[in-house]
Amino acid sequence: MTALGLHLLAEFTGCDAEALSDLGRVTAAMLQAAEASGATIVTHSFHHFSPHGVSGAVIIAESHLAIHTWPEHGFAAVDFFSCGPVDMDRGLAVLKAAFAATGETRLALERGPLQVLRP
Amino acid sequence: MTALGLHLLAEFTGCDAEALSDLGRVTAAMLQAAEASGATIVTHSFHHFSPHGVSGAVIIAESHLAIHTWPEHGFAAVDFFSCGPVDMDRGLAVLKAAFAATGETRLALERGPLQVLRP
Repeated sequence: MTALGLHLLAEFTGCDAEALSDLGRVTAAMLQAAEASGATIVTHSFHHFSPHGVSGAVIIAESHLAIHTWPEHGFAAVDFFSCGPVDMDRGLAVLKAAFAATGETRLALERGPLQVLRP
Repeated sequence: MTALGLHLLAEFTGCDAEALSDLGRVTAAMLQAAEASGATIVTHSFHHFSPHGVSGAVIIAESHLAIHTWPEHGFAAVDFFSCGPVDMDRGLAVLKAAFAATGETRLALERGPLQVLRP
């Protein structure tokens, strides 16, 4: 069985805390990221935590794009999982800009079967 | 900065194809898995693909639990991300049983900062 999907884990540091704690801004950025990547948005669900942070996911026809933010650390953890032709780099660039991140770390994995591509 | 969350990637093989292609069964199994793990369910969103497969996520107060299924391969890719006290093993056991999986592969990562714990 060859790989069924590509899973990109991205972490943004040095982000604007206000952007990360704003449910509307995080939701908008995630939807823009999905669109920029060429993904087909099926539905989405985002939630604001008290006192800090936003969690949520965009279900795309190609799989999902999820985020969890820690405004108090200027930190956001993003997951982009796709089993179709999606430009993840473009999507992640939208998020990096939206959060004014100064740093970014990525880990790419194949799913089905699970394999770390770039540790 | 110490780790902010634990991210467990799990893949189930040899699954019952009918279970993986049934939107209601996958949704129910995922909600049961979240409950069994002790997570607090915030909302969920699942989608059935034509002709095969189900994708979706449960947003939990501790982060998320996502799945993508490929019934034609008897395969399901699961993501369990938590920044709180959640028993992921119990949750994943529910899914393994629900799908009658014969095989399972896991990869555990810390998030914030990103680090592979068990490659």
